[in-house]
Amino acid sequence: ADIDAGKTKSAVCAACHGAEGVSAIPIYPNLKGQKEAYLVSALKAYKANQRQGGMSAVMTGQATLLSDDDIANLAAYYSSLK
Amino acid sequence: ADIDAGKTKSAVCAACHGAEGVSAIPIYPNLKGQKEAYLVSALKAYKANQRQGGMSAVMTGQATLLSDDDIANLAAYYSSLK
Repeated sequence: ADIDAGKTKSAVCAACHGAEGVSAIPIYPNLKGQKEAYLVSALKAYKANQRQGGMSAVMTGQATLLSDDDIANLAAYYSSLK
Repeated sequence: ADIDAGKTKSAVCAACHGAEGVSAIPIYPNLKGQKEAYLVSALKAYKANQRQGGMSAVMTGQATLLSDDDIANLAAYYSSLK
């Protein structure tokens, strides 16, 4: 996966998840340092519309815009943040 | 919420999420320092069977064993870990 491409792509995510993956809004999860494989799994679950409840409506919409490469790059980027 | 009660209850979670909420297994998310309101939202989504895909089968089973107080205490505990 390409961490730099992930960082570029993450501009979209930063609105809710914060510039460094630490969100300022309690209901939005921190992504900084999260497990890479979990991030891929969660994004794919949203993309496949397998998650309802909570903020899933927003996230499902976002995930559908992402390619598998985007998902891999984003997961690599956020998990790389220490 | 009662952080101590959350810590006691978290013994069940530690098997996958790690003793301090940092999992050793890539597909299991870290919980340490995660947003409290997000943890409540995610646990309630699992409890209401609103999450499929990924490890949801395991988590739905776990969440159904939790009362709303357990969920509040666990969320307070894990979000308190720095």
